[in-house]
Amino acid sequence: MKGIRQLAEHLDISIGTVSRALNGKPDVNEETRKRVLAAAEELGYVANQSGRSLRQGTTNVIGLMIESSKETIEDSDNFFLGLTSGLQSVLARHKLDLIMLPCPTDEDPYEYLKRMVARRVVDAMIISATQRVDKRIDLLSKAKIPFVSLGRSLSSGNSSWIDLDFDGVANSAVDRLVAHGHRRIAIAAPSNEINLGYIFLDGYRRALERHGIAYDPSLVIRVKTSEQGGYQAGHELLQIDNRPTAVILIYELMAIGLYRRLTEAGVIPGHDLAVIGFREEPRAKFLQPALTCFRMSLHDLGVELAETLLATMPAYSHFYPDSERNMIWPLKLIPGESDSFHLMAAE
Amino acid sequence: MKGIRQLAEHLDISIGTVSRALNGKPDVNEETRKRVLAAAEELGYVANQSGRSLRQGTTNVIGLMIESSKETIEDSDNFFLGLTSGLQSVLARHKLDLIMLPCPTDEDPYEYLKRMVARRVVDAMIISATQRVDKRIDLLSKAKIPFVSLGRSLSSGNSSWIDLDFDGVANSAVDRLVAHGHRRIAIAAPSNEINLGYIFLDGYRRALERHGIAYDPSLVIRVKTSEQGGYQAGHELLQIDNRPTAVILIYELMAIGLYRRLTEAGVIPGHDLAVIGFREEPRAKFLQPALTCFRMSLHDLGVELAETLLATMPAYSHFYPDSERNMIWPLKLIPGESDSFHLMAAE
Repeated sequence: MKGIRQLAEHLDISIGTVSRALNGKPDVNEETRKRVLAAAEELGYVANQSGRSLRQGTTNVIGLMIESSKETIEDSDNFFLGLTSGLQSVLARHKLDLIMLPCPTDEDPYEYLKRMVARRVVDAMIISATQRVDKRIDLLSKAKIPFVSLGRSLSSGNSSWIDLDFDGVANSAVDRLVAHGHRRIAIAAPSNEINLGYIFLDGYRRALERHGIAYDPSLVIRVKTSEQGGYQAGHELLQIDNRPTAVILIYELMAIGLYRRLTEAGVIPGHDLAVIGFREEPRAKFLQPALTCFRMSLHDLGVELAETLLATMPAYSHFYPDSERNMIWPLKLIPGESDSFHLMAAE
Repeated sequence: MKGIRQLAEHLDISIGTVSRALNGKPDVNEETRKRVLAAAEELGYVANQSGRSLRQGTTNVIGLMIESSKETIEDSDNFFLGLTSGLQSVLARHKLDLIMLPCPTDEDPYEYLKRMVARRVVDAMIISATQRVDKRIDLLSKAKIPFVSLGRSLSSGNSSWIDLDFDGVANSAVDRLVAHGHRRIAIAAPSNEINLGYIFLDGYRRALERHGIAYDPSLVIRVKTSEQGGYQAGHELLQIDNRPTAVILIYELMAIGLYRRLTEAGVIPGHDLAVIGFREEPRAKFLQPALTCFRMSLHDLGVELAETLLATMPAYSHFYPDSERNMIWPLKLIPGESDSFHLMAAE
């Protein structure tokens, strides 16, 4: 790669003049500027931003750490790609670029992040898949790397986060099912330590209590957050004595596997069992009967995440004076046919 | 963030000793090393790899540039996430990390890459969605950034690439359809300048010639590479005079939209129209009748891409002496029911 020195030698002009021409300074005549830019293009000169960044202490790059499991890849989970357009629309205002940091499936996310922090490839981070106790938050705080987490955590402290309204979703789902006469309402929850599972389950439990329904741990089905997990949830649900009449799913693509397992057993969703899914997903749109689920805009969430992050960065915070440090992101109920039947009073 | 100077002051030890302790040099006694490491952890000391990289001229990061369109996100296209595990399994051998560089939908990929090269966030690049003429290849060659492209191009020259066997797929598909009695075989090709469209179409044309079938441009349907594009292809196909009896699709998710449009019109895939899809895709597995398509391993392709790339990098090439610069990646036919009927001889 050609550096500024080679460029100056090639043109037989001083390094200072070449530098001023490249940086658009006014004290270079137009003809010289054109010659310099043409030669830079021809010789493949690339500004050494690594050097520039080191002087400024910045990379102008924002990282989005993603954890893709074998399951989410096979499910073609589009969640993170869906966030990029919103994130980039905000970052572009400030000439910042977004890169995605995919944590390998077999690596500990904390160790991975530690290495990426040491590599200093980014000025700031967005982390996701927040665990109930998440050491990554302490790591970033100590390293003084601005960050926002998609998902709150017991470790959050004063740090910035945006989280989906799992509590609101659990409440709406339980209210709706109870209004349709259901009392035995199962829930398919993630089998890992991801914090959203705890929040969702708490919301479900409190919503049941509000309706005077005792919490029954045997109705909590722990499965992987995948289509396959949904299939497994269907399988376990069919084996519960005094079978529940309704089920709430925490992950969007579970519905596809659940429908498949129920259909195999001759149990018709929306007729023999009420089903409420989580986030509306393009693929789940083709399910018959139509799935009752919750809508949100990934683009808008990306915008909000970027603005919340920039508000924590000294160089940009003045652009976002009104940004909230923490936000619960609402989802809107989209009624379908999967939970539209009413249980008889005799039940 | 704490630097080495602050760490040395805190411990009241010389910077040199702290540095030797952190870098695992043997001339530091065990107790001092432990004190230094404990303090580094406690104070959030992070090695300045940006400075280290600048001295070494490396970042130890490999970039995978991806171009996600609105369509591919809505389709939840899992292609690139599917490559990461294979790529990372090879890069991890050399303590290299993978980052993904998502080019914004509204930005020119060349301008985007130029900026990312200038930012020097990566040592080497994998580019994809190769265009027929692709200026990015010249850019990377001139900038002396090692790279491999997923997809050949007229611009490829001596550079490294791996491409899927579009020609082989077109040949197998045409052979199979001709053997079943078809002569009017349509093809749904991408409407953009992506090079794979040209290669696929050339293969299709030559395969027809081989069977003595005249190429008919009215049977080439140009649509977006998306589920929606497949729906559009179905729509256009139904309007062709002397309707074709078979269609070959270039993009995997087109089949879902195509089936939908055909079903709306009462045309049954695999009965009234033979359909051959491209890459096998988890979602397309649920199509009825089962889609004839082609199988490949994204993990294995990721492994091969990483090894081909490392073979172009001076620091790693000796590990991969037998690596080919260019490779056509095979796909295996998976027969389904979507093209299994035979046309009557009377046709």
